[in-house]
Amino acid sequence: VSSKRYLITPGPTPIPPEVAAAAAAPMQHHRSPEFRALLIETLGRLQQVFATENDIVLFTGSGTAAMESAVANMLSPGDRVVVATAGNFGDRWVKLIRSYGLEPVVVEQPWGERLDPARIGAAASEEGTKAVFVTHSETSTGVVHDVEAIAAAVAPSGAVLVVDAVSSLGGVELATDAWGVDVVVSGSQKALMSPPGLAFASVSEKAWKLAERSQLPRYYLDWRRAADSQVKGDTAFTPAVSIVLALRTALDLILTQGLANVWEHNRRLARATRAGVKGLGLDLYSPDDDSSAMVTALLMPEGVDGQECYTVLRDRHGIVLAGGHGPLRGRIMRIGHMGYMNEFDIVTALAGLEMALAQLGHTPPVPGGGVAAATALFAAEPVPVDG
Amino acid sequence: VSSKRYLITPGPTPIPPEVAAAAAAPMQHHRSPEFRALLIETLGRLQQVFATENDIVLFTGSGTAAMESAVANMLSPGDRVVVATAGNFGDRWVKLIRSYGLEPVVVEQPWGERLDPARIGAAASEEGTKAVFVTHSETSTGVVHDVEAIAAAVAPSGAVLVVDAVSSLGGVELATDAWGVDVVVSGSQKALMSPPGLAFASVSEKAWKLAERSQLPRYYLDWRRAADSQVKGDTAFTPAVSIVLALRTALDLILTQGLANVWEHNRRLARATRAGVKGLGLDLYSPDDDSSAMVTALLMPEGVDGQECYTVLRDRHGIVLAGGHGPLRGRIMRIGHMGYMNEFDIVTALAGLEMALAQLGHTPPVPGGGVAAATALFAAEPVPVDG
Repeated sequence: VSSKRYLITPGPTPIPPEVAAAAAAPMQHHRSPEFRALLIETLGRLQQVFATENDIVLFTGSGTAAMESAVANMLSPGDRVVVATAGNFGDRWVKLIRSYGLEPVVVEQPWGERLDPARIGAAASEEGTKAVFVTHSETSTGVVHDVEAIAAAVAPSGAVLVVDAVSSLGGVELATDAWGVDVVVSGSQKALMSPPGLAFASVSEKAWKLAERSQLPRYYLDWRRAADSQVKGDTAFTPAVSIVLALRTALDLILTQGLANVWEHNRRLARATRAGVKGLGLDLYSPDDDSSAMVTALLMPEGVDGQECYTVLRDRHGIVLAGGHGPLRGRIMRIGHMGYMNEFDIVTALAGLEMALAQLGHTPPVPGGGVAAATALFAAEPVPVDG
Repeated sequence: VSSKRYLITPGPTPIPPEVAAAAAAPMQHHRSPEFRALLIETLGRLQQVFATENDIVLFTGSGTAAMESAVANMLSPGDRVVVATAGNFGDRWVKLIRSYGLEPVVVEQPWGERLDPARIGAAASEEGTKAVFVTHSETSTGVVHDVEAIAAAVAPSGAVLVVDAVSSLGGVELATDAWGVDVVVSGSQKALMSPPGLAFASVSEKAWKLAERSQLPRYYLDWRRAADSQVKGDTAFTPAVSIVLALRTALDLILTQGLANVWEHNRRLARATRAGVKGLGLDLYSPDDDSSAMVTALLMPEGVDGQECYTVLRDRHGIVLAGGHGPLRGRIMRIGHMGYMNEFDIVTALAGLEMALAQLGHTPPVPGGGVAAATALFAAEPVPVDG
């Protein structure tokens, strides 16, 4: 079997060649005029992608490090905080907050549902709520929650709204300032199509006020220390220089294409993926609408184990999709279509899925029906030749 | 002026071409058999470089993140802990520990001195001392502290010994198990000649026992969570995949050359650097002996500002050395000779230094005296042709 691999997951996502080349450039010192200019440019481009004029603090770490920074920088023992969750990454907020000795009020919904802005707003409106933590793209289920509506529901409470946009930022609309989101955390390795290793948090004035009073310990993840360095183009600690180089290049690609065009590109790939899944005679787990543009989750047919399907795809065909987390393990398969993905990545995923399912005893109703549905959609929704 | 740059600093250090190429390989998923094998191999090689059979936990972050992990995982409010410091990075332990609400006992010595094992042992021997934090290579002064003697002095107390080896590991001997060091923290971007972005901590059984009882909060930097994942070849959170690829390649280069050969290589470059500094008529700030093998610090001549010299070197000659931290700012210049460095990097640093000093009004006693002294030493101490 060929060692060629097709990475079609919700992250890390494939890296465009010019981004990989940037990561391999000669090492440079982080306290140099070149790096200072690079960092300031990169932060400026991130502000465009975050759609914010707020400070963005950058950490070398995974997205979870940026999530933790929001907890450690803003909260104090005994604070009332609300977490809304309907999946694995929403649950991560709960675990993070508990690890700092606070007990959040959890607005829980079954995995696969969209978060209910009204319930979140009601929980936030109770006396003394300091902050509300939610997820934008819940990668474990494929659901993109309606952050605009959640922000509107939380606004009357005055609580700080924190959004985990690790797997959504740059791939789907997130109007940080216009929607009134105080803190957005994200990472380099999803829709931003860069190697994993950098994480960010945008911080509103209201969030800075909480940070000034917070009594939880932090050093490496301290926002003030990071921001005070960044003003001068510095980082508080040695950053992942090669990934900053990669990220700047990737952000250029994204902003040159235009954010709205990238979002439409992702929606189109998602529509084709959904059409293809149905063409294979399978049922969708993630919502069958344009909101689910980052990850499509499909239910395994009766009698087929998703983990087995994952393994066959990977080991026999070189295709890396994602299986299910937690209660969904073995039940679903997830196709990522964020970042550096195109029509034929979707074709590859669908063709491979048909072959793998056949090997596991599940033959689709129409041979080639998945790819046929996807290519029909692509043909019906052509992109401009220069697009 | 050419844009060609010569990075001759104590880190980040230059990346060998095969390491840079590894970092630019196609992205792979971190939950895959390939990555699991890569991670387990990399951790095994790190154990060889750490000279330990202890667990090594890996984090995506800078060296400071690994330092913080030692504090957050082992200490509890009210613990008696000792920090020994004689420079900027020793002081970082103090700041880190204070940021978690503990007040360390500080065994302080003037910058530029070597830490005194007897004083550290005495401080450790006082009732109830949980842990002792020291620095191996104090990058701010060029001093490599005698960790073997410190470990022997601390041993009778039973306190856990934590060593910051961020800028020494792999470049100078550190016999973790043989010397009885409980926790060694390091990073990818110094003697390990990989891009910055990965940090590690080796954890002895005694250190694990403290970690089980620690009451400080942590999530991203939690040792238990990291170790439990690593047993299966996983990481708790998405790691910097491209830097793991780079690091594995760099560790192969180091282990193929042989650690003892790498250490002697560094000592030889350091000897030539010291000879060259004296050949320029300048005084050394770091010790004039083989212990100072990672960074050589030299005093600026009377009337020459080190920051100005740094800027001339960088902007007119493309040579990036390091200036002085804190009280040494403007007074010293530091030449890094760890990692992917060779004879002609030292020649370049010395030739550039002579030219920059001349432009600032300081002419050396003998024209070309710095390079002449270095090349004479290289000639007198030849390396084997296949070396």
